Amino acid sequence: SSLPSTHNGNRGMRLEDDINESIAYYRREKLAVIHKKPTPVQIVNVDYPARSRAKITEAYFRQASTTDYNGVYRGCYLDFEAKETRQKQSFPFKNFHEHQLQHLADVDEQQGCAFLILRFAESDEIFVMKASVFVQLKERSERKSLQKQVIAENSIAVPSGFIPPIDFLPAVDRLFY
Amino acid sequence: SSLPSTHNGNRGMRLEDDINESIAYYRREKLAVIHKKPTPVQIVNVDYPARSRAKITEAYFRQASTTDYNGVYRGCYLDFEAKETRQKQSFPFKNFHEHQLQHLADVDEQQGCAFLILRFAESDEIFVMKASVFVQLKERSERKSLQKQVIAENSIAVPSGFIPPIDFLPAVDRLFY
Ligand SMILES: [Mg+2]
Ligand SMILES: [Mg+2]
Repeated sequence: SSLPSTHNGNRGMRLEDDINESIAYYRREKLAVIHKKPTPVQIVNVDYPARSRAKITEAYFRQASTTDYNGVYRGCYLDFEAKETRQKQSFPFKNFHEHQLQHLADVDEQQGCAFLILRFAESDEIFVMKASVFVQLKERSERKSLQKQVIAENSIAVPSGFIPPIDFLPAVDRLFY
Repeated sequence: SSLPSTHNGNRGMRLEDDINESIAYYRREKLAVIHKKPTPVQIVNVDYPARSRAKITEAYFRQASTTDYNGVYRGCYLDFEAKETRQKQSFPFKNFHEHQLQHLADVDEQQGCAFLILRFAESDEIFVMKASVFVQLKERSERKSLQKQVIAENSIAVPSGFIPPIDFLPAVDRLFY
């Protein structure tokens, strides 16, 4: 999970917005029901002012225990994490939390479709990769990042578009069906 | 979604805790991967004190756009809402938000398993009902609540237990497989 996009603010880093728009499109068109999970927050104090709604006055961001996105597509459970990098030639492994990869492995074991959407922000290249393939490549690697070339050979490239901005369902079809 | 249980505090109203324990058990035993979604919060202001973690100082509870629980069970997408009542003989329809029932209908259309877990707190009776059946009964009804007798005839009763407190997966098997 991540801070609201107002706290993000990096030009060119817009993967989350593009995916949110894409899943809204999929829901409207009845192609899939996918939602982003709310940012997990630990609530410490709440005020209940008279005549107005409850106001949270102290809370903290919590580590998410799962990925950001899940849902259902033609009967199949989909679960994915979306990450982007400013690096040009490789994707740093440190962008992936261990508990997220563990969650995706658990999903895989329950026969869900677990994958990653990876974006290279500078070149606007987007790849959809099975989570299990990513974990294998990570375990075999002696580097701190996965080279773009290796990603390209082990995933489906998705062109950036307009409506939806990232049409990743055809890649899911090819990877899992 | 609901307030944290500290704000709930009603004796006997413990369905959410029991379900959270049950899904943790299912995850540990590798029977299913189901999580409760975080409470959706609209964050308005965040302080970043030096040397300590970000503190949210103004935020509000948002209406959830989906149900509280979803996940994957033997390849199938599960999605459900859990509700309990202190009423003894019937379950008030007002406990169910229209957008939650709409979400469950959308899940149904994508061939996911959409259901409700209903608990009568006073008698500790728990029922698992297909969301589509609930909606049909609601539409046919001229009352403001669904009688327990009708619920019992159109759902699977789940005995309250110890580990897990609510073993609802066998009911899912019977309803959907
Ligand atoms: Mg993320
Ligand atoms: Mg609820």
